[in-house]
Amino acid sequence: MTAEHRDPEASGLRVAMIGHGFMGAAHSVGWRQAPAVFDLPVRPHMAVVVGRNAEATAAAAEKWGWDEAANDWREVVARDDIDIVDIVTPGDSHAQIAIAALEAGKHVLCEKPLANTVAEAEAMTDAATAAAAEGVRAMVGFTYRRVPAVTFMRDLIAAGKVGRVQQVRAAYRQDWLVDPQMPLAWRLQKERAGSGALGDIGAHIIDMTQFVTGLSIDRVSGVLDTIVKERPLLGSGSGLSGTAAEGYGEVTVDDVAVFTGRLESGALASFEATRFATGRKNGLTIEVSGDQGALAFELEDLNTLQFYDRTAPGEVQGFTRILVTEPQHPYVSAWWPAGHMLGYEHGFVHQVKDLVEGIVAGEDPHPTFAEGLAVQRVLAAVEESSQNGSAWVGTGAGTSEEEEQ
Amino acid sequence: MTAEHRDPEASGLRVAMIGHGFMGAAHSVGWRQAPAVFDLPVRPHMAVVVGRNAEATAAAAEKWGWDEAANDWREVVARDDIDIVDIVTPGDSHAQIAIAALEAGKHVLCEKPLANTVAEAEAMTDAATAAAAEGVRAMVGFTYRRVPAVTFMRDLIAAGKVGRVQQVRAAYRQDWLVDPQMPLAWRLQKERAGSGALGDIGAHIIDMTQFVTGLSIDRVSGVLDTIVKERPLLGSGSGLSGTAAEGYGEVTVDDVAVFTGRLESGALASFEATRFATGRKNGLTIEVSGDQGALAFELEDLNTLQFYDRTAPGEVQGFTRILVTEPQHPYVSAWWPAGHMLGYEHGFVHQVKDLVEGIVAGEDPHPTFAEGLAVQRVLAAVEESSQNGSAWVGTGAGTSEEEEQ
Amino acid sequence: MTAEHRDPEASGLRVAMIGHGFMGAAHSVGWRQAPAVFDLPVRPHMAVVVGRNAEATAAAAEKWGWDEAANDWREVVARDDIDIVDIVTPGDSHAQIAIAALEAGKHVLCEKPLANTVAEAEAMTDAATAAAAEGVRAMVGFTYRRVPAVTFMRDLIAAGKVGRVQQVRAAYRQDWLVDPQMPLAWRLQKERAGSGALGDIGAHIIDMTQFVTGLSIDRVSGVLDTIVKERPLLGSGSGLSGTAAEGYGEVTVDDVAVFTGRLESGALASFEATRFATGRKNGLTIEVSGDQGALAFELEDLNTLQFYDRTAPGEVQGFTRILVTEPQHPYVSAWWPAGHMLGYEHGFVHQVKDLVEGIVAGEDPHPTFAEGLAVQRVLAAVEESSQNGSAWVGTGAGTSEEEEQ
Amino acid sequence: MTAEHRDPEASGLRVAMIGHGFMGAAHSVGWRQAPAVFDLPVRPHMAVVVGRNAEATAAAAEKWGWDEAANDWREVVARDDIDIVDIVTPGDSHAQIAIAALEAGKHVLCEKPLANTVAEAEAMTDAATAAAAEGVRAMVGFTYRRVPAVTFMRDLIAAGKVGRVQQVRAAYRQDWLVDPQMPLAWRLQKERAGSGALGDIGAHIIDMTQFVTGLSIDRVSGVLDTIVKERPLLGSGSGLSGTAAEGYGEVTVDDVAVFTGRLESGALASFEATRFATGRKNGLTIEVSGDQGALAFELEDLNTLQFYDRTAPGEVQGFTRILVTEPQHPYVSAWWPAGHMLGYEHGFVHQVKDLVEGIVAGEDPHPTFAEGLAVQRVLAAVEESSQNGSAWVGTGAGTSEEEEQ
Repeated sequence: MTAEHRDPEASGLRVAMIGHGFMGAAHSVGWRQAPAVFDLPVRPHMAVVVGRNAEATAAAAEKWGWDEAANDWREVVARDDIDIVDIVTPGDSHAQIAIAALEAGKHVLCEKPLANTVAEAEAMTDAATAAAAEGVRAMVGFTYRRVPAVTFMRDLIAAGKVGRVQQVRAAYRQDWLVDPQMPLAWRLQKERAGSGALGDIGAHIIDMTQFVTGLSIDRVSGVLDTIVKERPLLGSGSGLSGTAAEGYGEVTVDDVAVFTGRLESGALASFEATRFATGRKNGLTIEVSGDQGALAFELEDLNTLQFYDRTAPGEVQGFTRILVTEPQHPYVSAWWPAGHMLGYEHGFVHQVKDLVEGIVAGEDPHPTFAEGLAVQRVLAAVEESSQNGSAWVGTGAGTSEEEEQ
Repeated sequence: MTAEHRDPEASGLRVAMIGHGFMGAAHSVGWRQAPAVFDLPVRPHMAVVVGRNAEATAAAAEKWGWDEAANDWREVVARDDIDIVDIVTPGDSHAQIAIAALEAGKHVLCEKPLANTVAEAEAMTDAATAAAAEGVRAMVGFTYRRVPAVTFMRDLIAAGKVGRVQQVRAAYRQDWLVDPQMPLAWRLQKERAGSGALGDIGAHIIDMTQFVTGLSIDRVSGVLDTIVKERPLLGSGSGLSGTAAEGYGEVTVDDVAVFTGRLESGALASFEATRFATGRKNGLTIEVSGDQGALAFELEDLNTLQFYDRTAPGEVQGFTRILVTEPQHPYVSAWWPAGHMLGYEHGFVHQVKDLVEGIVAGEDPHPTFAEGLAVQRVLAAVEESSQNGSAWVGTGAGTSEEEEQ
Repeated sequence: MTAEHRDPEASGLRVAMIGHGFMGAAHSVGWRQAPAVFDLPVRPHMAVVVGRNAEATAAAAEKWGWDEAANDWREVVARDDIDIVDIVTPGDSHAQIAIAALEAGKHVLCEKPLANTVAEAEAMTDAATAAAAEGVRAMVGFTYRRVPAVTFMRDLIAAGKVGRVQQVRAAYRQDWLVDPQMPLAWRLQKERAGSGALGDIGAHIIDMTQFVTGLSIDRVSGVLDTIVKERPLLGSGSGLSGTAAEGYGEVTVDDVAVFTGRLESGALASFEATRFATGRKNGLTIEVSGDQGALAFELEDLNTLQFYDRTAPGEVQGFTRILVTEPQHPYVSAWWPAGHMLGYEHGFVHQVKDLVEGIVAGEDPHPTFAEGLAVQRVLAAVEESSQNGSAWVGTGAGTSEEEEQ
Repeated sequence: MTAEHRDPEASGLRVAMIGHGFMGAAHSVGWRQAPAVFDLPVRPHMAVVVGRNAEATAAAAEKWGWDEAANDWREVVARDDIDIVDIVTPGDSHAQIAIAALEAGKHVLCEKPLANTVAEAEAMTDAATAAAAEGVRAMVGFTYRRVPAVTFMRDLIAAGKVGRVQQVRAAYRQDWLVDPQMPLAWRLQKERAGSGALGDIGAHIIDMTQFVTGLSIDRVSGVLDTIVKERPLLGSGSGLSGTAAEGYGEVTVDDVAVFTGRLESGALASFEATRFATGRKNGLTIEVSGDQGALAFELEDLNTLQFYDRTAPGEVQGFTRILVTEPQHPYVSAWWPAGHMLGYEHGFVHQVKDLVEGIVAGEDPHPTFAEGLAVQRVLAAVEESSQNGSAWVGTGAGTSEEEEQ
């Protein structure tokens, strides 16, 4: 019996989460908090968490409040009593788990980036399309879309408040690799991580640009750079906590990605993703400039949105710092009074809310796998451009593929 | 059998929450999240929520995840299977519930302000002192102390980073009463709310000043003001959601409180609490100036702390905007990576952590009822000063009571 | 022959400046720049600078571009070829110079504060009133009124953009006395300086409050404090550059002034003036809250004004950061394109412009001596209140003098 | 007799300014204020201003304080009594005037950009080199180098405070072309202006990057864009004040330039220059990230510099907002006390100071014509890259010219 045949109103939606790293903690908050904060049509139930290490998985289940720990994701995905599979493993396993789950009739929430390659992402999107015909939902986890200020930014642009979008400026800047003694973790190895700053954080600003403007990125030109080319080897461990083995190994992913995109409307968008912006911890910024106004957002100040209204009387024009904590703002009324701040994990709570509501309504919540694939194609095009002297490369999104002049 | 005779390691700590308004939602997050985020020595268990309205209480239990709903707090407080009583009712019932719970051997967490009067707060503090001899803990809920940036501010001052405290400037500014048609809710009636802006939000900056500086406020001079003196009556309801009856009623609490305090060290501290600061939603600000440096905090930017170090080389002195999201900062390592923001409710999670650890360790977590009483005495002194033409009034904290000249 | 009988169109307006300290430099910029930036109806001419020390005065004349140096202000004030007397000496000599100049038929610009005592200020105001009947102008130098953002703030309030003023919050915070080894300069001696932080910088926020709101401060309650009570004596010198004599002397002025005012409309205004706000260099801030909006200004960010419009749609309300550098903003069109910043001395240029235009038009430019006297009365009332245990003291501005309750 | 044979100590340095537009006003402030603020070794004298329109030039001379107005720059440049020629005309006439002046033995200050083409800039640099052998100085007017915060930024980087430069992020964003009805002024015509946003404001961030880091930009990849391709024709006038003729004409310069540079150290630098960033008036921003720290500057907040010190204790790291108004900061001691703001035109005053001191010392003040040429070469390389599908183009600065991979 597949998920859509169970009666979630009676039994709730039973969730299996595959993986239990940092993202597992964040997703667990989502599952735990969403039904206690929002009035959901049906309650999700934290049924089972899955990981290869039995002891660690059991500890995660105990601490985070999952009923059960399991060690074989294939078994769990096949279980009749599971309705939703939530994938929070590294990117190289997303495709196989997601496709298996979708084929088993489970709704899937897959952490971003959707996959490590375009080919994987395409296969996943195909699987999602097939599953949709059976009433099965698939969603990819770009949770920053669900920061209220970002959702509200999208709403204002959709309502015409900036007019025609003429320019976008986006960056995501961190600094955790500035120390050259930071060891060669899996995130710095191409075979595991797919790419470096580009795929990890560049993906966020690509998705956010397409989300808030409603415009696809059709062509890109860019350059990737690896600033520290060798780092201390880790020992047997696979993470930052491992012990350093003797010697150094090569960093095979990018530290910095700088690229320019051409939106389907013809507007230029500039992007920068870096792990070497000393002093910037989680510095995602985006500014959309239109012929009627502009909007700017910073993730380190995530409860606010800056709005410039060119239609206001000239002498009082300026950027208005909107505190996006009013009841009429997206998601906010379920939380606290005006001026009471939300934080990082609230996006994960909103993600659960929208997924559950989508399942019940029988509609795919955004971002769909197709949207995740679109991001993947932009990432691949940036890599190709960088390998070709920053030549412009099409993403497949545009109707025309002419070279940029 | 009293709480301390149960074995919490075996059975967990069973919690009863009395009240289920806005504060009930926030406290519920604390109880729900604390064991899933921190490695607590024993897990609290959300046993029962208590409210007069059976239907509403049952709904709150269901939504927030309490096992049980009950309607008579006296019965619940007397139950053997309850270890902790968490009081989130309006201030006029704090004293009777807290004293009954302490006398029944329950640990008590009481939302701020501790009480509506000094006499009540004194009785509560006496009860807490008596209970402490039996190993029962009592704590008052000034959760802003547990915003990591505020705890860190206290730590830096205690470590001498600002030197001798020479001035404090604090304010708490909101604007939800600017609209004169906002109805006459219970918070605007002295018999229910005790006081207005003074007790509701002024209490926070009084407590925070004493907490971060480690200095008591010994004398005060101030003035209270009611800007909109009459407001539309509510109908039968007791809250903002009631229907307006015909006519207007008198506002019997203050809209604005402006006062100056003399700290035990002799330094002056200025305070302003207002619900009429148009455009300010939750504008708590505090700045502590010392002979070696200064620290400034804003609640609407709650993940940051501003630090001025007078001992730095002169040409690079300035306020440093510290993002208090590093693992070495208070409470942070259990949450997210650097640069990932925390929000309003995290203080409630930290409160549960500290209370549970205090219970297990057999030590009173701060703020104690005695600290809550100290705040109450400052509030009363401000009211008395206002009634006496802003004459200086002692709070009982200082060793000397001379009139200010 | 008095000034008004000369033909300024033919000969220009010849200026004598009495004093040549820091304020002399700033006023000189005003006289030098105003005719080169604005299209004045008549050019002021920098005729003579006056100081007791012949050598220093000659050097100042040479550097700043005054035609001539002189050493006896009485002689200069009596000269027929002088039209305007600009007084930039310490406060204890303002009254005698200003009165002599007015009686000699010279237009007078007197640096703030108008005087050291109310009695002096009254005599000066009487002299100005008498002189006005002869077409002679008198103006006091609160140049911060002429920062474009401040003038614009006044304009917006006058146009009703904040509605009824319900609260004011103002502060002027500096830190140059935090070092206890800073010597006992004349500014710290009551007989020379009149008062400390109160008269020096508190005067600015008193004047600015009355200017931007258009409301008088009718009663005050406050407290003065001297944090460092003894400082190293200076030697024979009278300024900071003197050599320290043996021993310490008493500081006889206030380091900090905290006070509350009642405006003529009944609204409360809080004030703080301090030289001990570690890290704050020139921290003048003022916020005016009304029932339709709010305006906030900071002197350290002097080209901007923050405007909150309560009449905007709720979801996009927020403080708008207006860059007050557009041609339609006060004084700006004569300067640079939008976004090009003005600085401290521009207020002095605007002051000369307004004074010259007032002289030609035969109208007193603000602030008049009467306005300077009003500030002096507030300062005196604060001192009296502080000496009387913060009792409320009337300033003489209000129609009623009842005690504050 | 050429300038260097005159005795400036006796006669002063006599200045001729060619041109009298907006830049003429700014340069005039520099000449007028510098000797009155700084203790210069010799006073510059505002001798003659030159313009084609006799009436307008005479008015400028009168208002700005030049002794004389003249209409033929060739005559003036040849005069024996002129020591310095200051060129503030549009870019297409810089080369001929500067070369003539240098050949006549006059010191030359030439407004940026140095020229409209690399060929012109090369000829000018050759002329400057030849003149230098005769003791004649040449300087190009990138005045933003002389904002104290920018000079201080350079000093801190030179002192190793950010360590090795690893990344630069720079932008200059304005919005004055967002209105599509803004007419087709000369600045939008390639034959007059050379280029659009790139040469006008992009030149500033190119120069500033090279100045503060001390590193050349060796290769670039970029794209230019013209958002509004046709604009209303002006009538007979050549400026914004002209009347619109019938019809529209083509915009032949760029509205937006986005490009990436490779510094000689191998670090990447991203650049964006735009006149379409709605709401940004004069938004020059630059951030330099190194392995020991970072520095960030914003022109709209020009008295501050943000400094992140990675060598500070981890828990108090953050961006320090340095108010660059202390006496030990560059240029500041001659101005006002700490916390008193400087504005846009102060850079022009500092420029005069440094030029005069350079002339007297017999040393070229920076930026030299060679530095201006280096900027020109970067501008040309960006244009070439844009015309070649964003291929990387060398600027001639680097020792190697390999293609970027």
